[in-house]
Amino acid sequence: MALPAKNTLAVTFVQNTYMSHLVNEFNDYRTKMNEVILSKNNLVMKRLWNLDTNTYEAGAIDTKTKEMLGLVASMVLRCDDCIKYHLGKSFEQGVTTEQVYEIFAVANIVGGTIVIPHTRRAAEYWEELSK
Amino acid sequence: MALPAKNTLAVTFVQNTYMSHLVNEFNDYRTKMNEVILSKNNLVMKRLWNLDTNTYEAGAIDTKTKEMLGLVASMVLRCDDCIKYHLGKSFEQGVTTEQVYEIFAVANIVGGTIVIPHTRRAAEYWEELSK
Amino acid sequence: MALPAKNTLAVTFVQNTYMSHLVNEFNDYRTKMNEVILSKNNLVMKRLWNLDTNTYEAGAIDTKTKEMLGLVASMVLRCDDCIKYHLGKSFEQGVTTEQVYEIFAVANIVGGTIVIPHTRRAAEYWEELSK
Amino acid sequence: MALPAKNTLAVTFVQNTYMSHLVNEFNDYRTKMNEVILSKNNLVMKRLWNLDTNTYEAGAIDTKTKEMLGLVASMVLRCDDCIKYHLGKSFEQGVTTEQVYEIFAVANIVGGTIVIPHTRRAAEYWEELSK
Amino acid sequence: MALPAKNTLAVTFVQNTYMSHLVNEFNDYRTKMNEVILSKNNLVMKRLWNLDTNTYEAGAIDTKTKEMLGLVASMVLRCDDCIKYHLGKSFEQGVTTEQVYEIFAVANIVGGTIVIPHTRRAAEYWEELSK
Amino acid sequence: MALPAKNTLAVTFVQNTYMSHLVNEFNDYRTKMNEVILSKNNLVMKRLWNLDTNTYEAGAIDTKTKEMLGLVASMVLRCDDCIKYHLGKSFEQGVTTEQVYEIFAVANIVGGTIVIPHTRRAAEYWEELSK
Repeated sequence: MALPAKNTLAVTFVQNTYMSHLVNEFNDYRTKMNEVILSKNNLVMKRLWNLDTNTYEAGAIDTKTKEMLGLVASMVLRCDDCIKYHLGKSFEQGVTTEQVYEIFAVANIVGGTIVIPHTRRAAEYWEELSK
Repeated sequence: MALPAKNTLAVTFVQNTYMSHLVNEFNDYRTKMNEVILSKNNLVMKRLWNLDTNTYEAGAIDTKTKEMLGLVASMVLRCDDCIKYHLGKSFEQGVTTEQVYEIFAVANIVGGTIVIPHTRRAAEYWEELSK
Repeated sequence: MALPAKNTLAVTFVQNTYMSHLVNEFNDYRTKMNEVILSKNNLVMKRLWNLDTNTYEAGAIDTKTKEMLGLVASMVLRCDDCIKYHLGKSFEQGVTTEQVYEIFAVANIVGGTIVIPHTRRAAEYWEELSK
Repeated sequence: MALPAKNTLAVTFVQNTYMSHLVNEFNDYRTKMNEVILSKNNLVMKRLWNLDTNTYEAGAIDTKTKEMLGLVASMVLRCDDCIKYHLGKSFEQGVTTEQVYEIFAVANIVGGTIVIPHTRRAAEYWEELSK
Repeated sequence: MALPAKNTLAVTFVQNTYMSHLVNEFNDYRTKMNEVILSKNNLVMKRLWNLDTNTYEAGAIDTKTKEMLGLVASMVLRCDDCIKYHLGKSFEQGVTTEQVYEIFAVANIVGGTIVIPHTRRAAEYWEELSK
Repeated sequence: MALPAKNTLAVTFVQNTYMSHLVNEFNDYRTKMNEVILSKNNLVMKRLWNLDTNTYEAGAIDTKTKEMLGLVASMVLRCDDCIKYHLGKSFEQGVTTEQVYEIFAVANIVGGTIVIPHTRRAAEYWEELSK
């Protein structure tokens, strides 16, 4: 198979860089501010975060399904950063694009057309994760 | 095996009647008012309801998981009647009590302690369905 | 034209009484508790209520349209008592059943299927107002 | 000082009984369903409830102020049962009627007129607690 | 009438360009991401979007009023992109600035002061549309 | 005590400038758009804003506590600009970092993990105010 032309390679490089940019930007800011918050030693905040981690651990429902639950809940509550977080986790758990769009569909039907703008940003983030 | 004593039978009968009462009351009002709404022939409402049915049909995600998604979305949005509806469907799909409580846990962590009063009513409805 | 049979009259009487019941119950509780709240002389509450009245007075937009705006806002925010209040005002302003259902449709599309249970109760209240 | 006439005593008895009724009804249902939920041994739910208790313990902010924070948060999120719970706690902490109405005012200004119906029910519950 | 001085023309040019920028930016991103979403062929999403279009077509209520309903619903639900979309449609339908501000007033009274930041962004977008 | 090295001074200068940037950016946009909105002479909007000011004036509850109430209400309603505004006022009123984090804790427990992304942005803004 022939190599892609130089131009195509450049475009792909820019696209990948941009993608990493969107995903990295989210992760970097999240990490930085979590550190600031935890440095204040508020016990309730710390325990809530531990509990948040426990919530998605496998139990009677497996982790993959729980991440799907977290994603749909984040969408109907229209929390863009929560959506990004659960999209990242869903991607790691092997949720497919077709499945992600069925979750989008549930969220849009339950939560209405006000979920559409969040679905656009979710779709953009998913494209980047999938590349 | 011996038959249960008369008293136990009476208690069970009363309990079942009360249970049916809570579940039936919800279903009866829902059916009655849906008929009123549909009788007005508003096309958007009719199509939205058809679409709502389509949303939970098996696709890349199976119906059981979709009902779980509908349940968690209803809980974080704190819609008691939506919760009852999806609890009923989840029960039909064979979701277990342990699984239902893990969905409750996701909803309470994502949506906070304001979800607790709705979880109480959800727990009561699930008890009735399970009897 | 023949008079309706005795039975029909009795049914109509009961229906009308029940209707008044639902509308009156809402209005009575509202009046009673508004009095309690105003008796505490909180100035911010009093001014907010005056301002609320000003908001729906005719201006560049007529009162009838403003009541329709108040109704759709109450529906997507899923506030049953607010919906009842604006349904009452819309009825007084001559909004038709067909128009009310188009407002219901906008609310259900914008706000999603979680608006459906509130639409059922709105439809019931509208039936009573219309009798 | 003369004793109150028989009639007054009867009225007071009925009022107190009715009051206890509203407050007791809330507390009884809450206790009963909390027991059902806890009996399922979902660890996330149990820990969240412990954490909820920790949140309102005195720290850099005293418990009385924290209950006021819990009350205003419950009002803008329009959670009637959460409002009742924090009204009960605020009453125990010695929050005055004038202060409660200033909290109602903040909630109504921040959250808008959709908070009014919840303020009516809050005012009714506060009257009962205060008797 | 004398021509405006060169400086004024330059300022106007920059302002118009900036305005188009804000409106175009919204429209371009919306179009781009809608294409991504539709390319996945999720039937529920497609039908919901068709239904969304149907909802605002003239019926018992004219399109102009329906756009006003869509705008106030978007404001109380605090969805900036939905607000921009309905502001654009309202502008096309000939809604005046005075009318738009009366819709803003209804939204702020019903939804409270948390609607103010969204009103600021709505006011900015409306200025751009109106230039 | 020795003066900080040149590099340290430069870093501090940049940090302070950046901090002022975030706080100033918020205040400038707020002031600019408030002027646009007020220039339209909508009486309901004007009165609501006056009322908003009255709400936080000292009464049975002092201004400091009222700002804390405004902050927690803004957090559970997830309104970033409202949070920034009340953080600024709380800072002026002498609320400490430890107290601010206890307010964050109440907000996260009542409103759930969807409040976390807003808490991150609140923590960033508070760092800037505190510098």
